[in-house]
Amino acid sequence: MPKIAVYSDELPCGYALGIYPCHALLDTRPSIARRLLIHSEAENSPGIRKLKSRCEFLRVRVEVADQALARISRKENCFAAIVFDKYQDTLAKDLPHIVLHQPSDMGNLGTILRTCLGFSFLDLAIIRPAADYFDPRVVRASMGALFGMRVSTFADFSEYRAAFPAHALYPFMLDGSVLLQDAVPASTALPYALVFGNEATGLPAEFAEMGQAVRIPHSGKIDSLNLAVAVSIGAYAFSQGRG
Amino acid sequence: MPKIAVYSDELPCGYALGIYPCHALLDTRPSIARRLLIHSEAENSPGIRKLKSRCEFLRVRVEVADQALARISRKENCFAAIVFDKYQDTLAKDLPHIVLHQPSDMGNLGTILRTCLGFSFLDLAIIRPAADYFDPRVVRASMGALFGMRVSTFADFSEYRAAFPAHALYPFMLDGSVLLQDAVPASTALPYALVFGNEATGLPAEFAEMGQAVRIPHSGKIDSLNLAVAVSIGAYAFSQGRG
Repeated sequence: MPKIAVYSDELPCGYALGIYPCHALLDTRPSIARRLLIHSEAENSPGIRKLKSRCEFLRVRVEVADQALARISRKENCFAAIVFDKYQDTLAKDLPHIVLHQPSDMGNLGTILRTCLGFSFLDLAIIRPAADYFDPRVVRASMGALFGMRVSTFADFSEYRAAFPAHALYPFMLDGSVLLQDAVPASTALPYALVFGNEATGLPAEFAEMGQAVRIPHSGKIDSLNLAVAVSIGAYAFSQGRG
Repeated sequence: MPKIAVYSDELPCGYALGIYPCHALLDTRPSIARRLLIHSEAENSPGIRKLKSRCEFLRVRVEVADQALARISRKENCFAAIVFDKYQDTLAKDLPHIVLHQPSDMGNLGTILRTCLGFSFLDLAIIRPAADYFDPRVVRASMGALFGMRVSTFADFSEYRAAFPAHALYPFMLDGSVLLQDAVPASTALPYALVFGNEATGLPAEFAEMGQAVRIPHSGKIDSLNLAVAVSIGAYAFSQGRG
């Protein structure tokens, strides 16, 4: 078997670190699992035994690999990991999207994946350049939610728009002309996309012309909300409006 | 001058790392600033010059201290830090509170501080054991919002409750009996507290009996929302209800 390398975005495989993300992967995308790595110290713990038996059922190879685990996790308390094949998704044309324009923070991206799955926004578009959503830190912060979502990246916003011209756009901007609570439509039969900018710079000004620019009202004591917080509040509000 | 030590929760001082948190500190709590440390490479950059002139006006000592900055920031690209005296706050009796029961994640705590300030919840109670809110990682994740808030810790929830017996309690729980959108009162003239549990364990079951247990509806595809996300959605919803 080839040696398991420290993760880089150029590898064809990714790593799901930790018992919970491993189960999420096996539950939602079993066909991408290549190997289960387990730590000798935890080999007989209930959580690991359950993972092993799932993998044996799915005919996924199981290995005790303490050194590989230490290498890929960069910490010592990772007792299980799944090596998986990266994959490509296509977003649904008739469902709402979340669009992230050049997100750069791995933790935010993972938290956003978890929240989107929680509010049943299953389609996430990422406009490059952006953090690598297969990075183990993203997978871990998502608690494995990545595997339950459809994620697709685009070279720029035009490429996304060409692929999905019918989605009504809601760019979230600090100077958006409509407050969030007034922006959520009574009926959302048509597909729509909530669009969020980069952590440091937000969305470029021209996004205000592309749809209904939305503002989450907050006091002037902060410059902006954290990106994952803004996406979560937007997704919550629109998921309520749909109800 | 004493040598500047790596941060620990036993030190009487804390460190605000980075230009933005330093400005937030000087704007809101100038009296706690002891020293401004700046890096020789950035000494004449506009951001640092502005900090220096603020400190000179406030009669806060300014030092070029490359080694101390590297030591306390554990990274090399920190160009400014303020050494500040830790302080004690008392929460307002007549304003709404956010209560965190045993929060453990520094990043979450910082994000929560930033969001609370943004939604004008200025009083945060932390029930111990908990992450140290003066830790530089919290201060940095809060973007300096810590200094604009009142924060107080309590040995247990009973101690908090004895100090603030009149606040109507809204414990946020996965099995809360009322949905968030139905829990927000039309009028919130009386003080209230939104109460959130630990990242891994949530709130103990007995909290359901102490007030109106609230649930943020989400799909069964995730176990729970991230703590900072849950607090943000709760704070947003209640801040809207108050409007």
